[in-house]
Amino acid sequence: MSEEAPPGKSAPVQIGLLGRGNVGAAFEELLAERGEAVAAATGRRVELAGVLTRSEGDFEQILAGSELIVELMGGTEPTREYVLAALRAGRPVVTANKQLLAQHGAELFAAAREAGVQLRFEAAVAAVIPIVRTIQESFGVAEVARVFGIVNGTTNFILTEMAARGAPYDEVLAEAQRLGYAEADPSEDVNGADAAAKMAILARLAFHTPVGLDQVSFEGIEAIAPDDLAYAKELGLSLKLLGIAERRSGGISVRVFPCFLYGGHPLAPIQGSFNAVTVQGPAFGEVTMSGPGAGGMQTASAVLGDVVSIIAGEAPVHVTRAELPIVADVPSAFYLHLEVADQPGVLARIATVLGDHDVSVKSVVQRGSGDEARLVMVTHECLESRFAAAVGALAEIPELRAAPRYIHVIEGAE
Amino acid sequence: MSEEAPPGKSAPVQIGLLGRGNVGAAFEELLAERGEAVAAATGRRVELAGVLTRSEGDFEQILAGSELIVELMGGTEPTREYVLAALRAGRPVVTANKQLLAQHGAELFAAAREAGVQLRFEAAVAAVIPIVRTIQESFGVAEVARVFGIVNGTTNFILTEMAARGAPYDEVLAEAQRLGYAEADPSEDVNGADAAAKMAILARLAFHTPVGLDQVSFEGIEAIAPDDLAYAKELGLSLKLLGIAERRSGGISVRVFPCFLYGGHPLAPIQGSFNAVTVQGPAFGEVTMSGPGAGGMQTASAVLGDVVSIIAGEAPVHVTRAELPIVADVPSAFYLHLEVADQPGVLARIATVLGDHDVSVKSVVQRGSGDEARLVMVTHECLESRFAAAVGALAEIPELRAAPRYIHVIEGAE
Repeated sequence: MSEEAPPGKSAPVQIGLLGRGNVGAAFEELLAERGEAVAAATGRRVELAGVLTRSEGDFEQILAGSELIVELMGGTEPTREYVLAALRAGRPVVTANKQLLAQHGAELFAAAREAGVQLRFEAAVAAVIPIVRTIQESFGVAEVARVFGIVNGTTNFILTEMAARGAPYDEVLAEAQRLGYAEADPSEDVNGADAAAKMAILARLAFHTPVGLDQVSFEGIEAIAPDDLAYAKELGLSLKLLGIAERRSGGISVRVFPCFLYGGHPLAPIQGSFNAVTVQGPAFGEVTMSGPGAGGMQTASAVLGDVVSIIAGEAPVHVTRAELPIVADVPSAFYLHLEVADQPGVLARIATVLGDHDVSVKSVVQRGSGDEARLVMVTHECLESRFAAAVGALAEIPELRAAPRYIHVIEGAE
Repeated sequence: MSEEAPPGKSAPVQIGLLGRGNVGAAFEELLAERGEAVAAATGRRVELAGVLTRSEGDFEQILAGSELIVELMGGTEPTREYVLAALRAGRPVVTANKQLLAQHGAELFAAAREAGVQLRFEAAVAAVIPIVRTIQESFGVAEVARVFGIVNGTTNFILTEMAARGAPYDEVLAEAQRLGYAEADPSEDVNGADAAAKMAILARLAFHTPVGLDQVSFEGIEAIAPDDLAYAKELGLSLKLLGIAERRSGGISVRVFPCFLYGGHPLAPIQGSFNAVTVQGPAFGEVTMSGPGAGGMQTASAVLGDVVSIIAGEAPVHVTRAELPIVADVPSAFYLHLEVADQPGVLARIATVLGDHDVSVKSVVQRGSGDEARLVMVTHECLESRFAAAVGALAEIPELRAAPRYIHVIEGAE
């Protein structure tokens, strides 16, 4: 076979880089390192036309001298204006900015479509895991029933450590910060907001419908107690912060919440700071992808993949095909943790309350401690509203020694 | 956001379908079912221009009336001539034919490049798992160090059942045939030839070098005994038929062999007929993808993904960038099973033989049974040639009651 590159224009592609932080610097390095490979793959060399940072560079000048813009400056303003200006000027854009897409996706996709240029963002969700490309291209015309995953590495690291060592949340978070797995201000990660932005993007792509960050409900892991994880082990469950976007009765549901997975679940084995995403649909079945969800070089590598795809040729720009409503109340199984006075009739009363709300119990672990007992159960699937009502009623039972605690449970078979 | 499709020619894309077996029929069904989605994604409708089967259709006529050819007839002749004719006539081709690509890839890629048309084949490896797209596009310019995976569902189903029930190979194979997981003639699957063809394709793409089926060494699972799996459990190992393509001292090594994986290995949890592939490289780290590796509708779904990508726009055609030599002798750890007379000094003699060949032992399980003993050990990594020589020497030890048995072992950390 010949070694020559495929035919293509020979002038170098001028790339304008916005931002040179951790990822920007790694991208610059990678671009130099893989320049030959880019030329071999696309028939064109690549050059940095200019870099915009807080201290150097002029956006208009960089835009004028660039054929393609790579946005790695983060934030939503003035980033949004820059990306819109680039698209309107006919420049394809590659970004790793999840908040920008989750909050202003509709506007940005419309601008790209109008200008007839690509807007690529593989690195915005799960870094190097090619989930965006897979949903947009491999399954771009397939019927997707559900997309779910572990899309935040910080929280998965924390939960993995808590489960492995029985250590409390605060202690493990502090360690994660020491190791650089968690930021000085980890709130966006641990409260689920980061994962929510990523799920808004995946839901939009999977269901071809506008999804804004404000339509994604999310809970974090701050309230998880080590003994929840201990009981869960007895029940064969592992705890993950799960993002899930799925079709529900004519609409979609997009949520982020901590939940227990049974051993058979494809995401159950995902440990530490890794990310993983599963896509399910009637025709293709189920595909799961896992890998490092962060890291400067990993993210830069995903960015370069997008740059090369743009130089090599066209790919579809997201198009809205439907405007699906968001369904709020969906069925789920739950882990329920009750501290009760160890007196006759308590279990019966609890069972009655659950029965009255059509909540049926799948498995129970009872544990006496002095005059107290802990009752830990896993329910079958029921509407969340029903379960919430049942929990409300249980809280009224006088023998209850503490507020009921509950966590979602996902079946491996699902 | 607007609901209109992106701009594009409005005449339907005429598709010529070669073959209407299990996958071909599913593709026809899917094409009808997802026609609207294809139009929305690409701006063009799709129509079947004609179908070629043993009993109906004329190739020249179908080619003349088609804009794109989908090859699902299988086999290498006359399929090869048809695909070459289509490419030379300027028609992009989508195929699911692994043998065709593994045996005639060089010729076919050259023809596609010459004609400047796409040749896509996502469905040829691991069906719906987007491994071809990921290696060619996401990691098209990245440095790939290693690609390995479980790319044959029949053998993984058999090994999973053998491990779960301790049943012998023949019994489980018969069951797999009853359930339709194995063909009436399963030899290509169980002897590793099917996996070898897939690894030849992945190696070519990952390393941008010509790799022919004849350059892939392969072993099957026919000789696996249930007690190997029993001992392996004690050592925390699970058995898989692994395909591995990796850079080795200036060249590459492409092989298929049964091997044990430690629990931490990304492929250890892959059960039943599922496939999974891991790609590793210095910049992106490691990405693992898993899903159903076969099935008519799953395979057709991957084919449709390729068809849509072609209609939507261009993507790179494989280009050779180097001609890497195949490295035959590579290091590996091994599981070694010895049946010996239970006499003093035997272990010492065995240890001496291993030591003389620089084979060091990592863990040992000894089990006495009457006047016999079974010695099962896992070694550290050593060159396969060294290990083979050691096994040869061990076979000479008079106290040995049976020929030594051995199986590759892969570290999770690797």
